Amino acid sequence: MNAIPSAKTNPGNFFEDFRLGQVLDHATPRTIREGDAALYAALYGTRFAVQSADTFARKLGYAKSPIDDLLAFHVVFGKTVPDISLNAIANLGYADCRFLLPVYPGDTLNARSEVIGLKENSNHQSGIVYVRSKGFNQDGACVIDYVRWVMVRKRDAASPAPPDGVPDLPAAVPAEGLGEACPILPPGAYDRVLAGSPHLWDDYAPGERIDHVDGVTVEEAEHQTATRLYQNTAKVHFNQFSEGQGRFGRRLIYGGHVISLARALSFNGLANAFHVAAINGGRHVAPLFAGQTLFAWSEILACAALPGRDDVGALRIRTIAAKDRPCADFPGRGAEGYDPAVILDLDYWALAPRAGAAAAKG
Amino acid sequence: MNAIPSAKTNPGNFFEDFRLGQVLDHATPRTIREGDAALYAALYGTRFAVQSADTFARKLGYAKSPIDDLLAFHVVFGKTVPDISLNAIANLGYADCRFLLPVYPGDTLNARSEVIGLKENSNHQSGIVYVRSKGFNQDGACVIDYVRWVMVRKRDAASPAPPDGVPDLPAAVPAEGLGEACPILPPGAYDRVLAGSPHLWDDYAPGERIDHVDGVTVEEAEHQTATRLYQNTAKVHFNQFSEGQGRFGRRLIYGGHVISLARALSFNGLANAFHVAAINGGRHVAPLFAGQTLFAWSEILACAALPGRDDVGALRIRTIAAKDRPCADFPGRGAEGYDPAVILDLDYWALAPRAGAAAAKG
Amino acid sequence: MNAIPSAKTNPGNFFEDFRLGQVLDHATPRTIREGDAALYAALYGTRFAVQSADTFARKLGYAKSPIDDLLAFHVVFGKTVPDISLNAIANLGYADCRFLLPVYPGDTLNARSEVIGLKENSNHQSGIVYVRSKGFNQDGACVIDYVRWVMVRKRDAASPAPPDGVPDLPAAVPAEGLGEACPILPPGAYDRVLAGSPHLWDDYAPGERIDHVDGVTVEEAEHQTATRLYQNTAKVHFNQFSEGQGRFGRRLIYGGHVISLARALSFNGLANAFHVAAINGGRHVAPLFAGQTLFAWSEILACAALPGRDDVGALRIRTIAAKDRPCADFPGRGAEGYDPAVILDLDYWALAPRAGAAAAKG
Repeated sequence: MNAIPSAKTNPGNFFEDFRLGQVLDHATPRTIREGDAALYAALYGTRFAVQSADTFARKLGYAKSPIDDLLAFHVVFGKTVPDISLNAIANLGYADCRFLLPVYPGDTLNARSEVIGLKENSNHQSGIVYVRSKGFNQDGACVIDYVRWVMVRKRDAASPAPPDGVPDLPAAVPAEGLGEACPILPPGAYDRVLAGSPHLWDDYAPGERIDHVDGVTVEEAEHQTATRLYQNTAKVHFNQFSEGQGRFGRRLIYGGHVISLARALSFNGLANAFHVAAINGGRHVAPLFAGQTLFAWSEILACAALPGRDDVGALRIRTIAAKDRPCADFPGRGAEGYDPAVILDLDYWALAPRAGAAAAKG
Repeated sequence: MNAIPSAKTNPGNFFEDFRLGQVLDHATPRTIREGDAALYAALYGTRFAVQSADTFARKLGYAKSPIDDLLAFHVVFGKTVPDISLNAIANLGYADCRFLLPVYPGDTLNARSEVIGLKENSNHQSGIVYVRSKGFNQDGACVIDYVRWVMVRKRDAASPAPPDGVPDLPAAVPAEGLGEACPILPPGAYDRVLAGSPHLWDDYAPGERIDHVDGVTVEEAEHQTATRLYQNTAKVHFNQFSEGQGRFGRRLIYGGHVISLARALSFNGLANAFHVAAINGGRHVAPLFAGQTLFAWSEILACAALPGRDDVGALRIRTIAAKDRPCADFPGRGAEGYDPAVILDLDYWALAPRAGAAAAKG
Repeated sequence: MNAIPSAKTNPGNFFEDFRLGQVLDHATPRTIREGDAALYAALYGTRFAVQSADTFARKLGYAKSPIDDLLAFHVVFGKTVPDISLNAIANLGYADCRFLLPVYPGDTLNARSEVIGLKENSNHQSGIVYVRSKGFNQDGACVIDYVRWVMVRKRDAASPAPPDGVPDLPAAVPAEGLGEACPILPPGAYDRVLAGSPHLWDDYAPGERIDHVDGVTVEEAEHQTATRLYQNTAKVHFNQFSEGQGRFGRRLIYGGHVISLARALSFNGLANAFHVAAINGGRHVAPLFAGQTLFAWSEILACAALPGRDDVGALRIRTIAAKDRPCADFPGRGAEGYDPAVILDLDYWALAPRAGAAAAKG
């Protein structure tokens, strides 16, 4: 037999392969199916009524229940991995992430990224790549638009770095632009009894802190199943043979899984914050491993009315998740840095109904 | 930063919060999706042909495959947890549970409960709450109606107890009322070869005992995934951090998961008992934990013809499940109580086709 | 109480129960649902674009995304277990397996087998049963046709063996018969950027070896969930209580799960080999257990044009999977037998687009 070594596998891009302005069309279009919504519910136990019941969603002006905003995010994110972060050392941050259209079962998502920043590290071993990634539906309409930056290995420390450039990124998405993915809620359409909480946008105030009380323990089978559902191929999540010999000795849980777990826990206290309209930034402070229990708390950073809309308002929420540590005393970041149990520090905008949209009885 | 403690999380109701006649509209309407049926199949391996194949169900007069009766039950049950049993010490029993309409993918379920009984315990620390809970579909039609009673903590032992009252509950649902959720099977429509067993209602006799032979080992990821699918938030199922410090040192498996596992095992011997028409009562004798293997056996308690119907008859079945113990010798309850391996003692009615509904060849 | 032992459970067929020419109609028709496709994606992380996106599949001439060919195979296989292999000692081989029609969500699958070979073992304890099994959709059209042979226990070593006969089986499915389940791809319809690889049928050559690079660790909850999804009831996969006392001390992972894992890994290097057209043979060299990590590599055995078609060609692929051993050096079978890490040796035909079907830009 005539053995020929193949060069058909994807080695991923290394730092020196990227160029400012480069556009990457990502592979693997993905039709979102009703099964994806069911699996997402089963993996996180999410209870937001809009995403749970077609009847509830239709009364608000949706065609039917959209999928969870974070499920759409994870699917789009997953597509970018083979081109952007297969050789990543660390996922450093997110910014300016906006949810622009609801995604429904039956929609097909694609993704494209543009390189908007590059900066080689001083050791010449790696560099930081900034990309603006967009998810599109089958009509070509943009459903999600976000920036992330990752530290990517160089193939060869000696190879010249591409021209540098670091983008200006907003500290937060301005409230004025929020809400495109949310229909105008008809007056009195939002039933708070069915939604599970009486508290409207009007009832929250900046500085308010909410302990989400419950904790959830994560199993290997769960995070692997979730991450594969997103077609995210980053090997650190799946390969105990190689990870067992690595820095942590175990598989790393996809950071997006942690975000979804924290968001599901936040229902207890934020039940009417039904739509993630934007993610201002997020930091995976430390890794989560299977067998550990996640807790979360949130602080309201701001309450913003939306121009021309009195049906919903925006809550800027900082959610902090910790592992193996209940959050009744709000562990966070102090002068000496983060509490050692903290693993996630997320800053996002969610929409909640205002008084006029709420049903009188509900 | 101006930290404000929040009171927006749901503390659940305590014993003294309930009143006889009180009606509770539960949150989180839930559209049943095709993915829920697939997940239910994957979690339990159920093989009843009516729930497995649209073609089989349509021949019997269903619109298509209804979801498993117990899936509908778990979804309705899950909705009652945040209002009824968040502060429960123990789930004590079920009675008078009737399945009144098939539930199909696409249906949306809601739930409402009425407090029908209250009895403070003599230690003033807790009391028993009896509720009649009903599940409704998107047309407002009742699909499931059942009573359960739970022991609920008092917030304050010193607070006065609400007025007492204990409901009269039937030991069993009368056979006369069964079968509303089952279409009239056309003569010869039921194919026993496809269904997997030649044994019809006519072939069973009271006193008959069936060892269901197979055993199934439960993993943490499986019961957590199932219980989240039902949006059941009882924290004992998910939080190893707190349960590890508790009585058992581990997460408890939701009792309904055990019932569904036992029902799926019972296919081997009861393959044509395709519809759970009623649950007369059920007792979770002992907890099940991940890593343990469930076995089950059943005894036919009664065979009842249904008034005006010769297509199907009802089998009253007692199913006993045991852990880490095969059931060939039918472990049950003797003079000294239950065999130590027994964890479930369930009494229910299932419908099976009679000779006239069975195909000649099948 | 009047206890009557029941004989209503399925003991399965023993070797002496089979007869040459015997036809077995299998139980449990199964409607494939959108949830099954989502679960399959979540269990294996498969990324072939045809099965992932309706939009992609429609451009090629499919009605929508068909389910993964191996999912259809596993569902059909599962139906045969209660009649063929409940008393099996070993699953010995597959041959002449052809995929004849795409299977879509909404289709209902049935299965039927014919006994085409029987051979008692010299110890009279068991014998080999050869069956040709076929899966049919709701229109009665055959979607999958394959032969497998299993070693089945005798009920009684003393009972006479049925008349012998061993079928002639092809070493491989001839290339001429392949492709019935694949539409004629319109010229330029196949977008390689979306599919994830530039390499077409034309780019592969016999003797080429591809290391699929990635590894995936399997959890008990994952393989149990998969195997139940296929309604495969073989007890060795689910019952730790009995398997813990058996030869391996642990649950065995369904061989089909290993095949699907290897196929999903093979995307990295074979991304455009979008359709499994036939399985020529397969050998489960050794068992896989939970906690172990699977790696795989493939060799191109042949590249065959299909008569009358210039849109797609067939690649004959040998995929070898190993456990806890990366495959960069292509562990296989040498003079002294298999490398001890090898667990699967699979020989199949897959279709890939030819140059004319590929989009100019994609």
